[in-house]
Amino acid sequence: MKTRETPPVPEGPDGARPFGPPFPTFGGVRPWHPGSRAALVVMGVPYDAGTTNRPGTRFGPRAVREASWTGPLARRPEFMDRETATPLPLADALADAGDVWLEHENLEQDWPHITRAAGLILEAGAVPVTLGGDHSITYPVLKAFEPTPVHYVHLDTHLDCDTIFPTGWTHGSPVARIHQDGLTRSLTLLGIRGLTNSGHDAAWIREAGAVVIPARELRRLDEARLAERLPRGPFYVSVDVDFFDPAVAPGTGTPEPGGLFFPHFQTIVSAIARRGPIVGFDVVEVSPILEGPHGKTARLAACCVLELAAAVLSRS
Amino acid sequence: MKTRETPPVPEGPDGARPFGPPFPTFGGVRPWHPGSRAALVVMGVPYDAGTTNRPGTRFGPRAVREASWTGPLARRPEFMDRETATPLPLADALADAGDVWLEHENLEQDWPHITRAAGLILEAGAVPVTLGGDHSITYPVLKAFEPTPVHYVHLDTHLDCDTIFPTGWTHGSPVARIHQDGLTRSLTLLGIRGLTNSGHDAAWIREAGAVVIPARELRRLDEARLAERLPRGPFYVSVDVDFFDPAVAPGTGTPEPGGLFFPHFQTIVSAIARRGPIVGFDVVEVSPILEGPHGKTARLAACCVLELAAAVLSRS
Amino acid sequence: MKTRETPPVPEGPDGARPFGPPFPTFGGVRPWHPGSRAALVVMGVPYDAGTTNRPGTRFGPRAVREASWTGPLARRPEFMDRETATPLPLADALADAGDVWLEHENLEQDWPHITRAAGLILEAGAVPVTLGGDHSITYPVLKAFEPTPVHYVHLDTHLDCDTIFPTGWTHGSPVARIHQDGLTRSLTLLGIRGLTNSGHDAAWIREAGAVVIPARELRRLDEARLAERLPRGPFYVSVDVDFFDPAVAPGTGTPEPGGLFFPHFQTIVSAIARRGPIVGFDVVEVSPILEGPHGKTARLAACCVLELAAAVLSRS
Amino acid sequence: MKTRETPPVPEGPDGARPFGPPFPTFGGVRPWHPGSRAALVVMGVPYDAGTTNRPGTRFGPRAVREASWTGPLARRPEFMDRETATPLPLADALADAGDVWLEHENLEQDWPHITRAAGLILEAGAVPVTLGGDHSITYPVLKAFEPTPVHYVHLDTHLDCDTIFPTGWTHGSPVARIHQDGLTRSLTLLGIRGLTNSGHDAAWIREAGAVVIPARELRRLDEARLAERLPRGPFYVSVDVDFFDPAVAPGTGTPEPGGLFFPHFQTIVSAIARRGPIVGFDVVEVSPILEGPHGKTARLAACCVLELAAAVLSRS
Amino acid sequence: MKTRETPPVPEGPDGARPFGPPFPTFGGVRPWHPGSRAALVVMGVPYDAGTTNRPGTRFGPRAVREASWTGPLARRPEFMDRETATPLPLADALADAGDVWLEHENLEQDWPHITRAAGLILEAGAVPVTLGGDHSITYPVLKAFEPTPVHYVHLDTHLDCDTIFPTGWTHGSPVARIHQDGLTRSLTLLGIRGLTNSGHDAAWIREAGAVVIPARELRRLDEARLAERLPRGPFYVSVDVDFFDPAVAPGTGTPEPGGLFFPHFQTIVSAIARRGPIVGFDVVEVSPILEGPHGKTARLAACCVLELAAAVLSRS
Amino acid sequence: MKTRETPPVPEGPDGARPFGPPFPTFGGVRPWHPGSRAALVVMGVPYDAGTTNRPGTRFGPRAVREASWTGPLARRPEFMDRETATPLPLADALADAGDVWLEHENLEQDWPHITRAAGLILEAGAVPVTLGGDHSITYPVLKAFEPTPVHYVHLDTHLDCDTIFPTGWTHGSPVARIHQDGLTRSLTLLGIRGLTNSGHDAAWIREAGAVVIPARELRRLDEARLAERLPRGPFYVSVDVDFFDPAVAPGTGTPEPGGLFFPHFQTIVSAIARRGPIVGFDVVEVSPILEGPHGKTARLAACCVLELAAAVLSRS
Repeated sequence: MKTRETPPVPEGPDGARPFGPPFPTFGGVRPWHPGSRAALVVMGVPYDAGTTNRPGTRFGPRAVREASWTGPLARRPEFMDRETATPLPLADALADAGDVWLEHENLEQDWPHITRAAGLILEAGAVPVTLGGDHSITYPVLKAFEPTPVHYVHLDTHLDCDTIFPTGWTHGSPVARIHQDGLTRSLTLLGIRGLTNSGHDAAWIREAGAVVIPARELRRLDEARLAERLPRGPFYVSVDVDFFDPAVAPGTGTPEPGGLFFPHFQTIVSAIARRGPIVGFDVVEVSPILEGPHGKTARLAACCVLELAAAVLSRS
Repeated sequence: MKTRETPPVPEGPDGARPFGPPFPTFGGVRPWHPGSRAALVVMGVPYDAGTTNRPGTRFGPRAVREASWTGPLARRPEFMDRETATPLPLADALADAGDVWLEHENLEQDWPHITRAAGLILEAGAVPVTLGGDHSITYPVLKAFEPTPVHYVHLDTHLDCDTIFPTGWTHGSPVARIHQDGLTRSLTLLGIRGLTNSGHDAAWIREAGAVVIPARELRRLDEARLAERLPRGPFYVSVDVDFFDPAVAPGTGTPEPGGLFFPHFQTIVSAIARRGPIVGFDVVEVSPILEGPHGKTARLAACCVLELAAAVLSRS
Repeated sequence: MKTRETPPVPEGPDGARPFGPPFPTFGGVRPWHPGSRAALVVMGVPYDAGTTNRPGTRFGPRAVREASWTGPLARRPEFMDRETATPLPLADALADAGDVWLEHENLEQDWPHITRAAGLILEAGAVPVTLGGDHSITYPVLKAFEPTPVHYVHLDTHLDCDTIFPTGWTHGSPVARIHQDGLTRSLTLLGIRGLTNSGHDAAWIREAGAVVIPARELRRLDEARLAERLPRGPFYVSVDVDFFDPAVAPGTGTPEPGGLFFPHFQTIVSAIARRGPIVGFDVVEVSPILEGPHGKTARLAACCVLELAAAVLSRS
Repeated sequence: MKTRETPPVPEGPDGARPFGPPFPTFGGVRPWHPGSRAALVVMGVPYDAGTTNRPGTRFGPRAVREASWTGPLARRPEFMDRETATPLPLADALADAGDVWLEHENLEQDWPHITRAAGLILEAGAVPVTLGGDHSITYPVLKAFEPTPVHYVHLDTHLDCDTIFPTGWTHGSPVARIHQDGLTRSLTLLGIRGLTNSGHDAAWIREAGAVVIPARELRRLDEARLAERLPRGPFYVSVDVDFFDPAVAPGTGTPEPGGLFFPHFQTIVSAIARRGPIVGFDVVEVSPILEGPHGKTARLAACCVLELAAAVLSRS
Repeated sequence: MKTRETPPVPEGPDGARPFGPPFPTFGGVRPWHPGSRAALVVMGVPYDAGTTNRPGTRFGPRAVREASWTGPLARRPEFMDRETATPLPLADALADAGDVWLEHENLEQDWPHITRAAGLILEAGAVPVTLGGDHSITYPVLKAFEPTPVHYVHLDTHLDCDTIFPTGWTHGSPVARIHQDGLTRSLTLLGIRGLTNSGHDAAWIREAGAVVIPARELRRLDEARLAERLPRGPFYVSVDVDFFDPAVAPGTGTPEPGGLFFPHFQTIVSAIARRGPIVGFDVVEVSPILEGPHGKTARLAACCVLELAAAVLSRS
Repeated sequence: MKTRETPPVPEGPDGARPFGPPFPTFGGVRPWHPGSRAALVVMGVPYDAGTTNRPGTRFGPRAVREASWTGPLARRPEFMDRETATPLPLADALADAGDVWLEHENLEQDWPHITRAAGLILEAGAVPVTLGGDHSITYPVLKAFEPTPVHYVHLDTHLDCDTIFPTGWTHGSPVARIHQDGLTRSLTLLGIRGLTNSGHDAAWIREAGAVVIPARELRRLDEARLAERLPRGPFYVSVDVDFFDPAVAPGTGTPEPGGLFFPHFQTIVSAIARRGPIVGFDVVEVSPILEGPHGKTARLAACCVLELAAAVLSRS
């Protein structure tokens, strides 16, 4: 460290220049433009106008991308603690489209933008990977899958079928909207718990014919028995981080005690992947301004993305 | 969102005026005045003069009330993930008396105030629900039950029978005070663990004839076996949030690794309710200035209150 | 705190009644109901749907009320460091109506609610004192003054006459809306600075005939010279806390260096009061989740309210 | 822990001894034991039982010591930006006695401990430098000066002569206690402002014959004119960090807008030093849990100590 | 934002393309590649291995870029509060090269990378605008100017000519290194204050023939008198954010009371621009993990960049 | 609490003086000097120059010492919730040597300092207990054990055998360095998980003949079965706090979901102690600036030290 005199002018990561990667993408993967090829394409939706309680998920995509960077993804393409030990080429398979352009105060324009963004990714033959944003955005994303029918799997503490507000476009109602517009072939809700689900919600979800596995029951199911409760795919998986226990996901607007942990999530993803392909997924409700400087909720969300991406690739 | 011209002057929550509920009560329930009717009455005790280490529980009642609000309670009167699925009319049963008036620097006056406040609630035939404050306040609350004998159940990492300080009115000594003044018929301590309990404390608690179930053992007991270890009621239940693991309850003065989680707590409450009625309870040691912006410890405490309230109602 | 009209009010902290004041009002003043008498009435508007950048002002009213409490207001009714040293009976003059009832996701209903709330206060002959919320709420508050013409004084780093978004109901546009709807007789903007005001804004404000005194010039004006630049009242004063330097008001969405300090604010309030009565005012854009645990922005906002309230009373 | 007398002091960082300084003292100065020689001796008083609003000053001494360390003091013994440019041997003149032993829940024992600690430093011929703790501790420190009369200079936003609480031993009453017990020859209060001083306080302080210079007036006085307002020493100077503006001292329980800045403080210290020797001083009300991670209030307090220490030395 | 060279760039937010700008650049300006044209080019240096006290400036570039975004820069190309009122085409003049590629644990490689990055910008005829990083990086940036001589202006609380550590490559020594290697024609240090500058430093800087204007004196100089103390350009300006008062810049490793404010900075920049062109500048020592959630230090740094950029353009 | 008049001048903790313990040691134990006797000696290594991602572990030793203090250790020398219930004389057995003297910017000097410090403790016949600092410091500590061979047990989410950086002295490479220099007789890695371990790392560790038990498998092993996988001692145990789940250890640079909890750790320590003596251990990667005000990661680290110290003593 003594001599800095002799400047051996070393080369940069792309062989010639001293600047780093130009685009802080998810995990450092390459930027995506309509027309590029990729198996999965990340898109951020920095939208929290549907939040009824504590806001901040508009900063979710930025936080999840930052937390996804612990070094160049290219150097670590395989799972270490999985039984299969099969290397999964995540660095090649993933690309990042950046954030959807939103105006925040113009919902009539914002939601079609989201649907169109997801549509461009689907048109390119890729799996859209959406970083929220609050949970209301799952509706415009699912819109992009029309008319292809998907099976909807919802990981959440809440039933999200709130119909008591006149407008009804909040983060408490995506399941109701999705069902009413016929965007899915089935509804499966996992991890439900707590006192924020009303008797009205419970009645609605029963009538909708949804499969509901509360947190208490979910903790006791192993992968095989859980798989039996699921339909056959293709699946769209929507992960609200308040599905997890506040111990691991404090940075969200409506945390609820008694949630699940990451090993449970890994089991669920494996069970889903057993039953059919995952054609789209989102991880929503990360609010970085509601957690401390550690950023563990954002890191958890990044790991959810990678786990689901690996499940997509393991099938293809 | 386009037209705000036509003002259809909508009505407010009480039918006539545009202002919201006048009183930020626990869960949005109605205010309570001596003379009002309610099955359970919440009272806050913003007191932390008994804290030997890190202060801040004087702000506990305010934080727990804020965290208890995720929407009008009236809309969600039943548990979703309970086996019984019986709707529990929490919104009708609960009322909130506000905070006990304290001077902080005048202990001779503060403690009789606390006892008198709990006494007014008992005189009205209601179950007092106390939000701490540090753990020393359990003593003046229990004073209000005299001469009715109760069985005392203490959820805590600490034995709280410290007798080494000359004054002895700290948050480390309520169990000793309660026992010495003969305020309870039995002592049951659940969740004890860690190095902050001295050999002296261990000897004292043995002589006092208390039932002690350490955290390690408690994790292995199911509801039925735990119930066998408990006396028959009536019970007073005192919940120190450091009973929980720091993973879920970091906002407290003396957190200790190896604690319990919310599902354990639900099992314990069910076991207690099996054995007799709960005639009073408190949730103490929430220090909001010691946690991050997420407020998950306060939210956990609010859920403890609701879980215990449901247990009270399920028996009545 | 003496008259809370109907309820069987228990006695105070003299020993007869153990509970404290039932309502955490601004400064501990008495609650206000339509029909009560008061010189000034505080109302909170927990609304931040108009925020284009960093949210959180929906928690502003709660934070400002908390920060306003450093002891019973009744004990300190006069200014210590003012030349006049005249005791001002703030505790008698102020009352608190609580928060306007909002649904957040239903703007068509929320804004008429705000207008109606301010209208009820005006009908009672009192000065409405509004705690924001983001700056968009000044428009529905001013709507309540129709058809009485007021002179509008705007303390802010921004010109707030943004017309580039299609919808135009953000916190960047209240001055444009107010002017276009003819809600004021004149516009005076104080403290303008920084790069977030576009050339387009500058042109618009010139055409609107507004008096604009940038931060740099404002720092050099004493009370007398400033008063000369103001019209004669009656005045509505709107205080965006980003008028202040980030040194003293970090808890806001778009802080800007080079702002003013509290002594400047005191001078401005005195200058306004010289020129005519203040018939309404608001303090907006306090976002408690964007500052640290100290809460100094909320405390500053509470002091702005008291300073303006004193100016109202000094004229009446 | 008993014998630290025999100094088998290992050698310094020159390679012979791998361990750093054994004692995290203020500024890295040497530890002090009764009997050691030093011109000024720092003592910490981690006491906040007198705090009526937001606690945390019990952690003040620790935070100020940490903030005082930006490198070995021995390397920087002189002021750079002072007119005199005379090197001041701070590293030689200062020593640190550690913290006074307190039990927190035993006030009858704690205050005599504080008085005795300050007394030991005075007996050794040194100037006691006290790090608070809340402002109530100034009383037991001044007790140690009996029967030597001192002139008391109080830098604070508050008059601190509260007599409305029955007990009266809070951080709002040291000036009243000091005056009533005849511990000083005169009272001078600098920086008073804001609404937390009641009319009752104002009357009391007038009757006590105190010199009061409010913040507004103080900002306009230069060193010479300020000196004219002061008595001739010897002085005891008590610095409450809420004397400063919340811009620079947010980490305190009752911050108040419109305060002073460090250059004002430097001018005041110079003015005092002109008029006579400083025989003791304290810096109190630093509450590190109420500020962010930057620790600037603690750093400011450390600089106040150094500035006052330099003033002591410049006279001797 | 129009030309990102090769890719089939989709259209903007007008409806045709749903994705936002692909690159979170400073202020939203266009990305820069060697060969592109721009008057000023921003480069980030996320390096804090030279920090002797509290780290975190490696996250400075990211935080400053985030804070620079309060809306599309293209919409606000002119200064509002300047006397000239001349629109400055910042959006056209600025481009952003991203961050220099660093390995952190390989200093022999990191510093030549920094020098080469700045060199590429100079070769393109642009002014390099460096976002630190700790202050040690000014040395490798200045290396890139060789053999062109510049006049070095240093805004800082510290003299930064530390020579007591054996290695000497810390953030406390850039002025010493720059002078010893003959990288500048003159040294001017502004804002020096506090006790962290040793007598040794003072002697060294005198011998080096530097012009030193301490904070105390600087506060009293107007633009004209300050300009007289400066040499004639070309200038390289290095801004350590601890030059500013901790009131406005708490997010830095070694804050020092008694600093300057943004209006002082604006005056200094004007004075420098009077005397000659600015050919390069940096803003360093922003440590976002040391401030609260408000991010005001990063915002201040972003405004310093814009102010200096405007000064560059006003001369060209 | 009323009378403070009669000063019964009580004695201090060492019988004579009012000052507390002079040295904030780990758990309040006595300071250690070379030559003193103790079974275990704590030493802090405030070093984070090897950190590739988020820094701050240089403040680890200070934070762990603070968190270890919840009262005088002498009062609580035994485990309450252990099967044996044997009192362990921790207060007698432990001493604290303070921090190793480091220069931070002079690695050639810092690492030999660390080795020499650990060597002095070993020469005194004590077990060195190292508080990190980042994980790179395990290498210089193990150097001190030469030529005595130890079995190395590594609790971590990462394999830490990174060889891709040219210099290779980061916190990602201690296992590689230790193995290449032949400092251990065997390598056992527990708790490995996540995507930050590359395929290259996996291959390297296989060739090195290490025993690797991933987190998933580790959760399923009881004490007896785990013991079978371990060699016979003597052991050196290195605990990276990211071994734990981010739920309990958020204050670290690279947290990873799916980690272990404290009861698992207790089981592992028991299993190790069954197989042979522990002759040294460290707890590293605590970064207090990355967690909230609760400090639970530091408290967890302090409990790890006590648990391991008890295991050392239970064998001797």
